[in-house]
Amino acid sequence: MYRDRIRLPSLLNKVMSAEQAALLIQDGMTVGMSGFTRAGEAKAVPHALAQRAKVTPLKISLMTGASLGNDLDKELTEAGVLARRMPFQVDSTLRKAINAGEVMFIDQHLSETVEQLRNAQLKLPDVAVIEAVAITEQGHIVPTTSVGNSASFAIFARQVIVEINLAHNPNLEGLHDIYIPTYRPTRTPIPLVKVDDRIGSTAIPIPPEKIAAIVITHQGDSPSTVTPPDNDTQAIADHLIEFFKQEVAAGRLTNKLGPLQAGIGNIANAVMCGLIDSPFEDLTMYSEVLQDSTFDLIDAGKLSFASGSSITLSSRRNADVFGNLERYQDKLVLRPQEISNHPEVVRRLGIIGINTALEFDLYGNVNSTHVCGTRMMNGIGGSGDFARNAHLSIFVTKSIAKGGAISSVVPMVSHVDHTEHDVDILVTEIGLADLRGLAPRERARVVIDKCVHPSYREALNQYFEAACKLGGHTPHILRDALSWHVNLEETGRMLAV
Amino acid sequence: MYRDRIRLPSLLNKVMSAEQAALLIQDGMTVGMSGFTRAGEAKAVPHALAQRAKVTPLKISLMTGASLGNDLDKELTEAGVLARRMPFQVDSTLRKAINAGEVMFIDQHLSETVEQLRNAQLKLPDVAVIEAVAITEQGHIVPTTSVGNSASFAIFARQVIVEINLAHNPNLEGLHDIYIPTYRPTRTPIPLVKVDDRIGSTAIPIPPEKIAAIVITHQGDSPSTVTPPDNDTQAIADHLIEFFKQEVAAGRLTNKLGPLQAGIGNIANAVMCGLIDSPFEDLTMYSEVLQDSTFDLIDAGKLSFASGSSITLSSRRNADVFGNLERYQDKLVLRPQEISNHPEVVRRLGIIGINTALEFDLYGNVNSTHVCGTRMMNGIGGSGDFARNAHLSIFVTKSIAKGGAISSVVPMVSHVDHTEHDVDILVTEIGLADLRGLAPRERARVVIDKCVHPSYREALNQYFEAACKLGGHTPHILRDALSWHVNLEETGRMLAV
Repeated sequence: MYRDRIRLPSLLNKVMSAEQAALLIQDGMTVGMSGFTRAGEAKAVPHALAQRAKVTPLKISLMTGASLGNDLDKELTEAGVLARRMPFQVDSTLRKAINAGEVMFIDQHLSETVEQLRNAQLKLPDVAVIEAVAITEQGHIVPTTSVGNSASFAIFARQVIVEINLAHNPNLEGLHDIYIPTYRPTRTPIPLVKVDDRIGSTAIPIPPEKIAAIVITHQGDSPSTVTPPDNDTQAIADHLIEFFKQEVAAGRLTNKLGPLQAGIGNIANAVMCGLIDSPFEDLTMYSEVLQDSTFDLIDAGKLSFASGSSITLSSRRNADVFGNLERYQDKLVLRPQEISNHPEVVRRLGIIGINTALEFDLYGNVNSTHVCGTRMMNGIGGSGDFARNAHLSIFVTKSIAKGGAISSVVPMVSHVDHTEHDVDILVTEIGLADLRGLAPRERARVVIDKCVHPSYREALNQYFEAACKLGGHTPHILRDALSWHVNLEETGRMLAV
Repeated sequence: MYRDRIRLPSLLNKVMSAEQAALLIQDGMTVGMSGFTRAGEAKAVPHALAQRAKVTPLKISLMTGASLGNDLDKELTEAGVLARRMPFQVDSTLRKAINAGEVMFIDQHLSETVEQLRNAQLKLPDVAVIEAVAITEQGHIVPTTSVGNSASFAIFARQVIVEINLAHNPNLEGLHDIYIPTYRPTRTPIPLVKVDDRIGSTAIPIPPEKIAAIVITHQGDSPSTVTPPDNDTQAIADHLIEFFKQEVAAGRLTNKLGPLQAGIGNIANAVMCGLIDSPFEDLTMYSEVLQDSTFDLIDAGKLSFASGSSITLSSRRNADVFGNLERYQDKLVLRPQEISNHPEVVRRLGIIGINTALEFDLYGNVNSTHVCGTRMMNGIGGSGDFARNAHLSIFVTKSIAKGGAISSVVPMVSHVDHTEHDVDILVTEIGLADLRGLAPRERARVVIDKCVHPSYREALNQYFEAACKLGGHTPHILRDALSWHVNLEETGRMLAV
């Protein structure tokens, strides 16, 4: 059944139950697990670990690529397993524990975690748990639907547990491109100059004797929860496509645009879907997560190549894509997140980065993570890796939330993830603000004119006018700058009705 | 007199007065000038332009490498010449005009200005004014004490004015390494893998017919205003050197440390001076500005190579260094600021970046630019280029200012230039906070214990404890978060005595 998936015979005797394998993980250890945006996470061992912890309490520091599926972060949180967690999550139970100060969450640029491990600035994983479709004749690990940080975790860990997941199509093999930068001071350039360059190996090269356990599983990834475009996300897509047309007309982009990066979620997905009926051709993606829209664009003949670190699909697309992978095989590559998000590559390729803001302010500072400056939503993820070095750094959000109680455009953001220096274009359903080459006072005028919901425009304009009277390069009334957030916390609305 | 400095004879007839040359600059134009941290700026033409504007008003958009010397920004501001200014400045008169909203200042990461020009996202310069020691047989321009953005300005401008400055030692020729990244989508890796690699040409290659005017000048750069270390800056240096020793002991650094970058100013200079009597050997710099301390370290046999974009010296060191340049010639290179600050190179080389904070907060967010969130000091400069991708991102500041009226460590910074994600180490004269791998609540404890001045420690601790009771990943009391800054504006002190 699984013997063709373990092609190095000497490893066959490492097959054991998840419970047995999980015993390699001891209280106080640092563990690196596969998994990036609900794709390709190790499934059986963390589940077994949580079950054990209910009887025999233990705590670990858990690193992954990004978020896990199959409610594993919930299960691990409820079992009290997580002392520390990095670099990203999206689970509501874990989020509560993080915000209560019960789990120490280290929110990181997704390109940086393994760099910090490589430099011994974080504690190296004792054990890595990596989901795989196969182990090669050399004992190398073939990942499944994500690469994430799996390769470096396996290289750095003393012991590696491999979960061979029979639910994944074995023809995922060949899709991955594992490239690991060398140690400084003799590091050389990353030799990737086109989105479809292959620069590494198709499996994770580790000495097979590090594989301490192999667990056989048969469980799918969780489907993504992306919803179809609504009127607002469609309007955002329309504004952005109109902007791209103007950039082409001005000679600043070609009809191929540039390599596209899109964050997770409904708005970015809607923008990508909007490209299906656009005049642009021969598009490419150099992104983190390949979502439904990636495959819709390929099917429509619009997208010629997509590079990512994971494939995360809805129930609608999952069976079709993975059941017909040969249709996409020459148009896809999955890379370590260090490479999919690497500043060197992002700057070189000239990526068009489209990410979601929680809120942004008059001057173009963006909050991607903290509700009212304090409560973590998910994490910065890769947004900073792309926004800093992109050819165009675009942030999208609906102009209001909670039925209008919240404006996504505020006088001063309550937390800054992306500074004014790293934000070119802001888009809401109201319109698009092009901030390139503008000073703060000019930015504010454009943001007020183009992005703010009409019910907040007058109030924001009054704030700005009054702030300008006080002076400053970036005018603010410090006493009132966060008052909209204070109102929200105290009355449930940013402004009195 | 100057004929040996203009080695392409056909250009000799382009020699004219500064007044004549300045006539090439018309009202409404965008002008790119040489000059980076008071080094190598064009001197005569901007002066002539300011003189003319007093009689015949005109406004331009002025781009430079960084700050200008010889009070040129003051003179241009007073003459009303500056409509727009980017990407950095340090002049008090210009600063006032920026904060009054009279000059639109675009504060940029120093590595990004020419990238945005190359992509036509900023208006290209109509005219470039470049200070040079010579024009070669090919008509190429040999810069003086800085490269900055000069090469790209000369390449992008329709017309180029060259100021041949006879006050500069002609043996500056050979010091520069001009490398220009190619246009996307066919851009290749920057082939720089060691601080002393030379990857470009020693002069700026432009078609000589673009040289529309040559002006002969004889005026030195302004000396830097760096002061010797005081007790506080010495204490900061001592903390940092002790930290480096611990990093070496832990095997995370070698005795050579890593390529060092130091921001402008007294604190960074004091830190570099502190290395003279340290146990570290064979040091290198990959920085923006080479200051007095660079040459003191070379003289002490501690520093084997320094790469920068400019040389800015005090009166103490200026004559000695430039009068004996042959002593340093094989240990120095000056590069375009796009390359000295390039994220690709910074990440590859593993730089130790040391920059100055105006203030930082409990969680490690850093404000480098805005007094009380509104009034621009100088600009972000290159600090973000280095902090984001450095092996170690270090920010230094004295713990208090204005005789104790201001704490440099605050509950929430009033403006964010560097987010918690990009800050590893914070140092004041009180101590050093190592924030690597810590969650926000853990960061706050370390910052309070290590960095805060005793007179503010209790108040900051009270804020943090009260904020933690409200919960959140990054606890804050939004109503009070900026109250220290409000107090400062209203009473002249952050806290009541």
